Amino acid sequence: MPRPVLDFWFDFASTYSYLAAMRISGAARQAGAEVRWKPFLLGPIFKAQGWDTSPFSIYEAKGRYMWRDMERQTEALGMPFRRPEPFPQNSLLAARLALAGAAAGAPWVADFCIAVFRAQFGEGRRIDDPSTLSALLTGLNVDAATALAAAASDASKARLRVQTEQASQLGIFGAPSFIAADGELFWGNDRLEAALVWAAR
Amino acid sequence: MPRPVLDFWFDFASTYSYLAAMRISGAARQAGAEVRWKPFLLGPIFKAQGWDTSPFSIYEAKGRYMWRDMERQTEALGMPFRRPEPFPQNSLLAARLALAGAAAGAPWVADFCIAVFRAQFGEGRRIDDPSTLSALLTGLNVDAATALAAAASDASKARLRVQTEQASQLGIFGAPSFIAADGELFWGNDRLEAALVWAAR
Repeated sequence: MPRPVLDFWFDFASTYSYLAAMRISGAARQAGAEVRWKPFLLGPIFKAQGWDTSPFSIYEAKGRYMWRDMERQTEALGMPFRRPEPFPQNSLLAARLALAGAAAGAPWVADFCIAVFRAQFGEGRRIDDPSTLSALLTGLNVDAATALAAAASDASKARLRVQTEQASQLGIFGAPSFIAADGELFWGNDRLEAALVWAAR
Repeated sequence: MPRPVLDFWFDFASTYSYLAAMRISGAARQAGAEVRWKPFLLGPIFKAQGWDTSPFSIYEAKGRYMWRDMERQTEALGMPFRRPEPFPQNSLLAARLALAGAAAGAPWVADFCIAVFRAQFGEGRRIDDPSTLSALLTGLNVDAATALAAAASDASKARLRVQTEQASQLGIFGAPSFIAADGELFWGNDRLEAALVWAAR
């Protein structure tokens, strides 16, 4: 039987995507599944719903709750947590970097994604700052200048637009989302385990 | 040590409140906790967020996902599920009935709440129809005419307004929500277990 595949759709600026990003490799290993990391931008998807920023910023009570819930969840999972300023961060460059790496078949994409999430939500660093991302790449023994140049190419920009358009067409309305090979969609870090069970059926 | 108490805030029209309503008595028994059933209306809370109906009706992709997720969740829990028409139902009368019963110290409130959820989401019946609610009350050996008269009183109407106002003041922005004695808020059926653990600390 071929190894089950689960697509992990996320925006680097998404709080609950942080939880999923830190958990998914271990959970997938246990389930014998392969994870495909699919960064996209929530911005255009939120805009189509009439929102010009994160719903956690627009809806105050929901936002307050989310930060408290993230405190509880990260504590329960033993993960570091710091509320980044500003929120949401601009995740464009991080997403282009990950996509450019994936397009080139680079082996560091998953590690880079995890490093970006940890820097932002574990250490409160700004991921819209190229020097942050550059340092993370260097920490992974990746040539940062080459990676940043690839991310800045027209092809890389087009790739992120297409990826985000595809997310919308797949029915994605938030992050994290998980999609099995048959198209079954699961939304939210709380559904990671159910998505893996589905993918492995 | 006094028995831990968990307040269960719900709107009868809320799909995920159905899941919580069918699970909470058993889960609370296992946790040694007491549940207080707190019906309120999401309508005024949604209106304050700029929504004139359920977000599942406003945001199409989110709505489509919710119905699919409800199918999966009810199947996993072995619960019957039928999508009610229309959605959302008008839950005003059911909420007033439950509140009037609670105010009179009636022993049937939790059973009535469960029966309303099951009729609506398990059998697709309309809960805005007094004859549906009347039949459910009769099935619980409650005098339906007396209960409906109490629900129609000015005191009962005021009670529901106060309850909904209180929900908003407690930071509630959706349903189901769970609140422990210390004010800690948990949102969503997925957080029922965590809320019970918190309440029992």
